[in-house]
Amino acid sequence: MSQIRGRFNKDADKLAETYTASIQFDKRLYPYDITGSIVHARMLAKQGIISEQEAQTIIGGLNSIKKEIEQGKFEFKPELEDIHMNIEARLIEKVGEIGGKLHTARSRNDQIAVDMRLFTRDAIAQSIAEIRGLQKALVDLAEANKDTVIPGYTHLQQAQPVLLAHHLLAYFEMLQRDADRFKCCRKRTDILPLGSGALAGVAYNIDREFLARELGFDRISQNSLDAVSDRDFVIEYEVATSLCMMHVSRLAEEVILWSSAEFDFIELDDTYATGSSIMPQKKNPDVAELARSKTGRIYGNLMALLTTMKGLPLAYNKDMQEDKEGFFDTVDTLLATLEVMASIVATLHIKTDNTTKAVRRGYLLATDLADYLVKKGESFRTAHDIIARLIGYAVSQDKTLDMLSLEAYKQFSPRFGEDVYSITVESSLAARDNIGGTAPKRVAQALANARKALEESST
Amino acid sequence: MSQIRGRFNKDADKLAETYTASIQFDKRLYPYDITGSIVHARMLAKQGIISEQEAQTIIGGLNSIKKEIEQGKFEFKPELEDIHMNIEARLIEKVGEIGGKLHTARSRNDQIAVDMRLFTRDAIAQSIAEIRGLQKALVDLAEANKDTVIPGYTHLQQAQPVLLAHHLLAYFEMLQRDADRFKCCRKRTDILPLGSGALAGVAYNIDREFLARELGFDRISQNSLDAVSDRDFVIEYEVATSLCMMHVSRLAEEVILWSSAEFDFIELDDTYATGSSIMPQKKNPDVAELARSKTGRIYGNLMALLTTMKGLPLAYNKDMQEDKEGFFDTVDTLLATLEVMASIVATLHIKTDNTTKAVRRGYLLATDLADYLVKKGESFRTAHDIIARLIGYAVSQDKTLDMLSLEAYKQFSPRFGEDVYSITVESSLAARDNIGGTAPKRVAQALANARKALEESST
Amino acid sequence: MSQIRGRFNKDADKLAETYTASIQFDKRLYPYDITGSIVHARMLAKQGIISEQEAQTIIGGLNSIKKEIEQGKFEFKPELEDIHMNIEARLIEKVGEIGGKLHTARSRNDQIAVDMRLFTRDAIAQSIAEIRGLQKALVDLAEANKDTVIPGYTHLQQAQPVLLAHHLLAYFEMLQRDADRFKCCRKRTDILPLGSGALAGVAYNIDREFLARELGFDRISQNSLDAVSDRDFVIEYEVATSLCMMHVSRLAEEVILWSSAEFDFIELDDTYATGSSIMPQKKNPDVAELARSKTGRIYGNLMALLTTMKGLPLAYNKDMQEDKEGFFDTVDTLLATLEVMASIVATLHIKTDNTTKAVRRGYLLATDLADYLVKKGESFRTAHDIIARLIGYAVSQDKTLDMLSLEAYKQFSPRFGEDVYSITVESSLAARDNIGGTAPKRVAQALANARKALEESST
Amino acid sequence: MSQIRGRFNKDADKLAETYTASIQFDKRLYPYDITGSIVHARMLAKQGIISEQEAQTIIGGLNSIKKEIEQGKFEFKPELEDIHMNIEARLIEKVGEIGGKLHTARSRNDQIAVDMRLFTRDAIAQSIAEIRGLQKALVDLAEANKDTVIPGYTHLQQAQPVLLAHHLLAYFEMLQRDADRFKCCRKRTDILPLGSGALAGVAYNIDREFLARELGFDRISQNSLDAVSDRDFVIEYEVATSLCMMHVSRLAEEVILWSSAEFDFIELDDTYATGSSIMPQKKNPDVAELARSKTGRIYGNLMALLTTMKGLPLAYNKDMQEDKEGFFDTVDTLLATLEVMASIVATLHIKTDNTTKAVRRGYLLATDLADYLVKKGESFRTAHDIIARLIGYAVSQDKTLDMLSLEAYKQFSPRFGEDVYSITVESSLAARDNIGGTAPKRVAQALANARKALEESST
Repeated sequence: MSQIRGRFNKDADKLAETYTASIQFDKRLYPYDITGSIVHARMLAKQGIISEQEAQTIIGGLNSIKKEIEQGKFEFKPELEDIHMNIEARLIEKVGEIGGKLHTARSRNDQIAVDMRLFTRDAIAQSIAEIRGLQKALVDLAEANKDTVIPGYTHLQQAQPVLLAHHLLAYFEMLQRDADRFKCCRKRTDILPLGSGALAGVAYNIDREFLARELGFDRISQNSLDAVSDRDFVIEYEVATSLCMMHVSRLAEEVILWSSAEFDFIELDDTYATGSSIMPQKKNPDVAELARSKTGRIYGNLMALLTTMKGLPLAYNKDMQEDKEGFFDTVDTLLATLEVMASIVATLHIKTDNTTKAVRRGYLLATDLADYLVKKGESFRTAHDIIARLIGYAVSQDKTLDMLSLEAYKQFSPRFGEDVYSITVESSLAARDNIGGTAPKRVAQALANARKALEESST
Repeated sequence: MSQIRGRFNKDADKLAETYTASIQFDKRLYPYDITGSIVHARMLAKQGIISEQEAQTIIGGLNSIKKEIEQGKFEFKPELEDIHMNIEARLIEKVGEIGGKLHTARSRNDQIAVDMRLFTRDAIAQSIAEIRGLQKALVDLAEANKDTVIPGYTHLQQAQPVLLAHHLLAYFEMLQRDADRFKCCRKRTDILPLGSGALAGVAYNIDREFLARELGFDRISQNSLDAVSDRDFVIEYEVATSLCMMHVSRLAEEVILWSSAEFDFIELDDTYATGSSIMPQKKNPDVAELARSKTGRIYGNLMALLTTMKGLPLAYNKDMQEDKEGFFDTVDTLLATLEVMASIVATLHIKTDNTTKAVRRGYLLATDLADYLVKKGESFRTAHDIIARLIGYAVSQDKTLDMLSLEAYKQFSPRFGEDVYSITVESSLAARDNIGGTAPKRVAQALANARKALEESST
Repeated sequence: MSQIRGRFNKDADKLAETYTASIQFDKRLYPYDITGSIVHARMLAKQGIISEQEAQTIIGGLNSIKKEIEQGKFEFKPELEDIHMNIEARLIEKVGEIGGKLHTARSRNDQIAVDMRLFTRDAIAQSIAEIRGLQKALVDLAEANKDTVIPGYTHLQQAQPVLLAHHLLAYFEMLQRDADRFKCCRKRTDILPLGSGALAGVAYNIDREFLARELGFDRISQNSLDAVSDRDFVIEYEVATSLCMMHVSRLAEEVILWSSAEFDFIELDDTYATGSSIMPQKKNPDVAELARSKTGRIYGNLMALLTTMKGLPLAYNKDMQEDKEGFFDTVDTLLATLEVMASIVATLHIKTDNTTKAVRRGYLLATDLADYLVKKGESFRTAHDIIARLIGYAVSQDKTLDMLSLEAYKQFSPRFGEDVYSITVESSLAARDNIGGTAPKRVAQALANARKALEESST
Repeated sequence: MSQIRGRFNKDADKLAETYTASIQFDKRLYPYDITGSIVHARMLAKQGIISEQEAQTIIGGLNSIKKEIEQGKFEFKPELEDIHMNIEARLIEKVGEIGGKLHTARSRNDQIAVDMRLFTRDAIAQSIAEIRGLQKALVDLAEANKDTVIPGYTHLQQAQPVLLAHHLLAYFEMLQRDADRFKCCRKRTDILPLGSGALAGVAYNIDREFLARELGFDRISQNSLDAVSDRDFVIEYEVATSLCMMHVSRLAEEVILWSSAEFDFIELDDTYATGSSIMPQKKNPDVAELARSKTGRIYGNLMALLTTMKGLPLAYNKDMQEDKEGFFDTVDTLLATLEVMASIVATLHIKTDNTTKAVRRGYLLATDLADYLVKKGESFRTAHDIIARLIGYAVSQDKTLDMLSLEAYKQFSPRFGEDVYSITVESSLAARDNIGGTAPKRVAQALANARKALEESST
């Protein structure tokens, strides 16, 4: 870039230029860069560092550049390295030498920091909105199927019956924490770095409170070296995304399992399944598979930036330019994944005949049988052993528990009585009547709470 | 384990037993496990699920087991798998069949969750305390050297003079955010999972509010499936640690650079340097190197758990047993690293002669010269070009800027006057008089603020 | 450590000592360290650097130290930092001042490098042996069930019938590549670093060919700086393990899926399943879950070391001490996982009734129907569309394909004839008669090849 | 995609389409896809599966499509998902229904596998070529400065003098291993997967030997399930790149250190340094910083794919589509980084005055002094202690070793004689006359060997 290569004799050759240029990806920051520059110009004028007239000229130029970009008429040039220099060069082209005054009391180091923070603030807001969208779809699905019972699993083995709504609300809870993490991240993002200069502050009588107020920042950075060399907020966004995608990958896994011929609990809407180029019968849960899979890239982007930042001496190092591509990819991937998963959930068809059959089969009530003996005075450990032997017997007879005679029961414990037959899926669900339990009335309350939380979050 | 293998015909062979046992690492959780069990027993009695007498017997047994462990008299058995079963088996040994009642209305799934949350809560408190220790050491060092000036760097090139105290306070700021992140993590850790049972809640009239109150939890988990299958809080601790270690690795890098013969800004206390087995002259910054290096393992532990949790269907899966070893290593490594880094900082000797020489050499005042021209009416970009050429000239003449004659200056711009010689390191520092800037009075204020924040955090 | 702290005034305090000591984990290297030292002593004597008598004394001392360690009588001291200094100090204790001559023409930097390479060479050999064990178990299981057909899946959707043996041999192939990767790693491990000194070579007339020959190394390192600062071979081992564990995690996933009630294709031997503390009916595939899960820690260890090594200037840095713990964990985890997975496979019971039912259900022959039309002259794309519509019709009628009448077929294409009913699972398998295809005779050949490869690898 | 959505009632909505489409990145595979298709068509004709005439029509169409793409006239459509379907759809457009026959005896699953293997084979060849380029630059620089001595470092502390050429050749060695790893990867990449069909082989009499021969593959995959679900070769490429970038990051770190004012050993060519927007005196090693930094993204891409592949059941899953973007980025980043680093090295100016000064300062000859005493009969450990105390004394007197009087020497050991003054940098270098040592004649030989290896590799 001619402006800043004054001391050098040669132009950067094409190779180095391409290697170091960031304009191909940081051009995306243009609205934030221009907003920051406009507010900076207004501050410079307010403080008498440039004249009001100069500020107006600069602001007019910046606004027209913004329009050029929006209309696709702006030519981004790699030889001008980055978004800042592309815009500044064009500004000087348009308004002349006066454009050069915009960079007074500012460095690209604090300029990129403010651009990134403005962008991240927006990304956080959108991420939370998309999380709400997926939560809403889960709550809707839960309400629409509020009586459906499915086998609850541990170790992918059928364990105890649970309400489908209860299962879906588990994801609601995970997503609540995810949203909370994005909010925590926002607190540490919403800080003005502008005014930190290259590293030491600037030698002008600037007004950082004004900058913060006009750019809508909550707080002002308290150390210039830190402000230009910190990328915590980017990493923290990537972390919040990693946890959120981890949760989504679990939901996606269940969508894939449940749409297999073996589980067959759900049918995906045709929109969210794809066919095979060779096997005409296939209905593949591609979208869910990709949602699961993209968790990998999100983790990878996180690991990339953590690695990059490790061991860097203060303050700014060019290494930090690598904070962008992976981060942008993380933002885009998260938003798209949340949106598409919300649509999958919203259009999911539950095959209640199959879930009912699955719950009736098997030995999901074993825990309830053990609890039955405990309530008749047995210690839990002994009761557990008795039921384990009882089930071994039932399996060997190829019978379900309700098919066993009372005599059979009594062979394992004299405590069994006629009332053992009153242990049913319904009684099992109803018995788990604690905060967070799967009893229908608890789940109804949890659904109502979830609905209320969503409403409050949107106001 | 005999108790829970009732249905099986063979004993687990040695190989599988060793592979699945967690007792060799989860025994560390014993105080949390016992505390949780005592409160659980009291709750069972209060609710009439067991008798008051039974509860007292159980609690007595647990307390004496705790003593056995503390005195190193407890024999941990791999064939009993984990800490829960080791303690329960011993309890039954000591108090008889009644001990088996402790597991009523509880599963190992919610039991391990409560152990882990209690442990993590403690780990967070200790981590924050160690962060405060390092912050205090930084503030002490900054105050003890509050007039020391060092070259500020970007790209590891000398850029502008900064106060050493300003530089050190950049780390104070990073660590403030780190402590904040641990506090955010605490909010999402401080939630009672007990009462969630294996996955669906429990079929007893338990009192979760009582459990939460007695165990000191802020909140109660709202979904049983989520409560037993969530390990977010562990990952979030690992994330907060990863960011903190990233910051520490930057400080360690600077300690290493600064103690090289080439920089020679500091001398490490002999306690925190080691010799070479072959080169008698060496004084190696081993401790700082390890602090830098251990960042790798912290990242690795994070990546390990993120990978493990990806795509797991609900609810508990054995995979989740892998949440412990890496996590414990992360806790231990963080605490040790913060402590040792605080000691390094506390005992650091600053070689002010050398830092002064470094600041006087070189062209650290170039920005101030450009600003000088700007204040005389030049646009920043033009001023920047003029100074770049001026420095090229000075380099070619092997002169520092203050050695140039006024005539020499004027050859580059007629705006230069006699007052150019009043640009000094001191004037450069003083000029950066903005919030967060390196001006001595700003830094003094920042130091006072830091001191105050530390005092407040410890009360 | 007194020997190497001569220039320092204070002893390292406990904190720093604990932080930097490696003896708690590198003591495991003792047999390699002693072997290396014995050969080094012999070389020193052969070259006249020490006397033959001195060498004998040293070697005698080393051998008796080895015995002490093996008998658990050796006291490892953290204040002596590492395995080298622990052994050397004890040697001097035992044989006097002469023991100090062992370190002539050697540094801890090349000494640890040779220890690590010897250890890694052994770890590679054992890893390959365990891979062979798992391969053998797969081949045995395949042979024992060579007529069993299962649904082949893509996207976890039933796709086409395949022989179970074919499916199992896919893992055989993966493991072949894994073994190959360990062999490649061995080539780059089997290089003598001893004689590189601290970083620059040594100032003695040593004989590196002798050292290499006696220690069984293939080649000799060609650059001393590289030899002491390279840990590629450790990373490469971790990489080979990461890929191998990735493969194992896929097998483990299938074991978990197939032992679910929904798939129910296999029954795990009781030895490799565990019960639940609360649900008496459960038979959890814990071992497979852990095998899947431990992939995370293997990836984490890899990421840790890659991160640690990034950006380190030459030559040795203390950071490199972090090459051990994660690596040892990786070795131990891989060996245990391969062994336990081999046992799982060896004791697996295939429920052929269920696999047969699964294959007969569903639309696994759809591709064959499309191929049928192609062979009658249809283009593949058109045939694919016809069959897709045909299956849509069959699904809506709740019929399998063999239940459709010829008239029904003909409604979708006039090309259908009576011979459509000769499309069966058996014909489908037999038709895939290409290299690598699932036709029984191809699979029989592949099995024979696999058996032969195993036999050759063990000779 | 209309062709393969026959069974579905709705079109995929825009969201799902965008989410699942890969055409925006896999279009890059077009030359491999077309080559594969042409050979496949020829094979189909040869085997009588399609007519020779049909094959010619298809091949003609494919060739003209290739031209359209090369000329930028081809419209890639996201609704056609991927490169295969985009080309096939256009083929049918151009040659009619006959184009549909190309997909006979082939699935997208084996088609993408062959595309990826062809691409990777090329990427490996280019990667090795770029490694050779960087090696050549290192050897050239070493030869051009073959008498230059620099301080060798451990722990970033000056340790012993080494030839710059020796130091540079350490990187040559690392890059040799890197090239070897790419060659190993090639062995496992160069395997034909085509003919594996969707997962089970194909039901046609195809000729896989013909396909392999015509596409230049060394070997043929032996298991169809494995062939379509394996992405080891991609991961292995990413691993080889991770190690290579780790090495490059170390070189980059040294370039950055050495171009700091404090080291000042080198001057970067202006082409490979950039200025500051605010500090006119700066000459930033941006290119080296980015090379160091991009190591992070390479690690991240590796971690991403490892994570994605973990625990996937056989055979193909949509997750595997995520193998491309990170991989392409890895290839591009590696090639660009190697090229730019070669240029940096090729244009580096060594400031020999400064390196000479650095070597003469300090206590680099301490090891030689200890060796001197050993040769006079002292044990190494005692000699080490003596020299450590001697240097402590010299430091306290602010003297270099050659400034000490013989009397001073003798106070530390009576073994010192006049000949102690013959220990010089030159004698120190010359003494390290072992294989791999820094003695000038050894380094000259190593340089010659390196040059020869490069020549051989290029023929």
